[in-house]
Amino acid sequence: MSRDRENERATGMGPGVEFDLIRRLVARWGSTAVGLGDDAAVLDVPPGTKLVVSTDTSVDLVHFRSDWLTPGECAYRATVAALSDLAAMAAEPLGMLIAATLQSSLAGDLDALADGIAEAARAASCPIVGGDLSRGDRLSLTVTVLGTSTQPVRRSGAAAGQDIVVTGELGGPAESVRAFLAGTQPAPAHRERFARPVPRLAEARWLAAAGATALIDISDGLVPEARHVAAASGVTLAIDLGAVPVMQGADVRTAVASGEEYELLATVPPGLDVDAFVREFQIRLTRIGRVEAGEPTAAFLEGGARVDLPGGYDHFSP
Amino acid sequence: MSRDRENERATGMGPGVEFDLIRRLVARWGSTAVGLGDDAAVLDVPPGTKLVVSTDTSVDLVHFRSDWLTPGECAYRATVAALSDLAAMAAEPLGMLIAATLQSSLAGDLDALADGIAEAARAASCPIVGGDLSRGDRLSLTVTVLGTSTQPVRRSGAAAGQDIVVTGELGGPAESVRAFLAGTQPAPAHRERFARPVPRLAEARWLAAAGATALIDISDGLVPEARHVAAASGVTLAIDLGAVPVMQGADVRTAVASGEEYELLATVPPGLDVDAFVREFQIRLTRIGRVEAGEPTAAFLEGGARVDLPGGYDHFSP
Repeated sequence: MSRDRENERATGMGPGVEFDLIRRLVARWGSTAVGLGDDAAVLDVPPGTKLVVSTDTSVDLVHFRSDWLTPGECAYRATVAALSDLAAMAAEPLGMLIAATLQSSLAGDLDALADGIAEAARAASCPIVGGDLSRGDRLSLTVTVLGTSTQPVRRSGAAAGQDIVVTGELGGPAESVRAFLAGTQPAPAHRERFARPVPRLAEARWLAAAGATALIDISDGLVPEARHVAAASGVTLAIDLGAVPVMQGADVRTAVASGEEYELLATVPPGLDVDAFVREFQIRLTRIGRVEAGEPTAAFLEGGARVDLPGGYDHFSP
Repeated sequence: MSRDRENERATGMGPGVEFDLIRRLVARWGSTAVGLGDDAAVLDVPPGTKLVVSTDTSVDLVHFRSDWLTPGECAYRATVAALSDLAAMAAEPLGMLIAATLQSSLAGDLDALADGIAEAARAASCPIVGGDLSRGDRLSLTVTVLGTSTQPVRRSGAAAGQDIVVTGELGGPAESVRAFLAGTQPAPAHRERFARPVPRLAEARWLAAAGATALIDISDGLVPEARHVAAASGVTLAIDLGAVPVMQGADVRTAVASGEEYELLATVPPGLDVDAFVREFQIRLTRIGRVEAGEPTAAFLEGGARVDLPGGYDHFSP
């Protein structure tokens, strides 16, 4: 059998330019890609666990700024954005599917894109189990993530008297965008958080095990995410702006409106052992407020007085 | 609580233009949409079954022709294209996620798009369990389908001595595209097959129960699909062109190169009760050839002589 034919057999795909591109991806991904090459992926979901699944599209002009980030960084971020939704449910990654729309001229970037995806996949121990390649005039990635959990944490369990906590430090992405828009380079620490966010998967499972009642990832900004939890739980989230942890050099009002942070916002029983979390993960966990009975909204306080804040990032705001 | 606040609580999403669009979709989908509004969908996979999952992107310029089809038909077809991958594994639908990239100007078509998706979802008894809305300058839909199966049928089980069968009649999509490109209207029966394909889900499960050894849906054309099965199984698929069922008025050579048929190609044990299939589903099931030992390729015969055929639709062919 010829080398081509062996390669076709190994991937379960016949000849063709599209299938050659897929073979190139599969070869590059190595053991990070599992079971590609049939019409669908086949996975085992452990008995006693629920399946958790989410899909997330990153579009050229909205999410990607190729003059700001390398193609590999763009692909890494798009993959993390999806994985972060598994963290938001306290789920354990099971596998991901990558639907990529590529310009023909982008075939040269394919390796860099593949490497960015694989890096995020490997860091999360989440194999690539399927995907789809299309041609279009804009680069776009839709990443679908599958996970499992014995008890997923939703947005709806927040109850009066609980604490509100947030992981890490906010503001890096917002300050990076501000610098890029001004035509300058962001501070390295800010750029690092923008280019290389980390899905807080193990942190989320720790919070779930510690009794978190509501959990959400900060993809659209702390303000709208807090409002989602408030809406779903039917409670007021009273958040002290002064307590919100921000990176050095970042402005707190910009930081709480900033999307794509991929930190976690959680409501937890009072008395949570914050120090144990910090010892385990070497990132901050900060109490920023309390859940109260009342209007289902997020109330932001500064020096005890309520302040009005804009709603954060909205794909469709005018 | 105000009406808005009640609505926010019901969907688990706070205020915002993007979230209003999602609420509008959820309202329009009614009982076809299940459990939307958290960071991820949570599903039960029945014990003893495997999870089957696939993702499929339909991009404006490649898959959609808005001057040929209505927005609702485009969305219906995009959804069927994904569901057809579940059929190709003989899986039972569990749920689907819709990642839509919309131009702002398309908000007016959102209801029609939503209805097309819902029609395909309802016909397949496959609830919409999640999704993502992005803004871009091209309409694009990525549909991820989840299914279950006790024994998924892959491409790799074809063995010498088995029969090759195909469901339905081919050629409608190709003849429709030919007519549209010539600036005329296709024959109504051809247009119907192009605009309203049907995922052969129950038919696939029947074939699996009847012992099908390899199964694939004809999304790229009979020729490349037969080559995929041959490559994955390490056998020759010898197919008699004269036996391939084509619609009245369709040309067989065009039909076997035609993508987006969404009929099934299967290898089955000899002696399969074709009549029982036809009685059950009221569509044709036709023997078109035999699996033979030999080079892993599809050999097309006409009057006993081998003919060379082009490879069918390839997103990335030059």
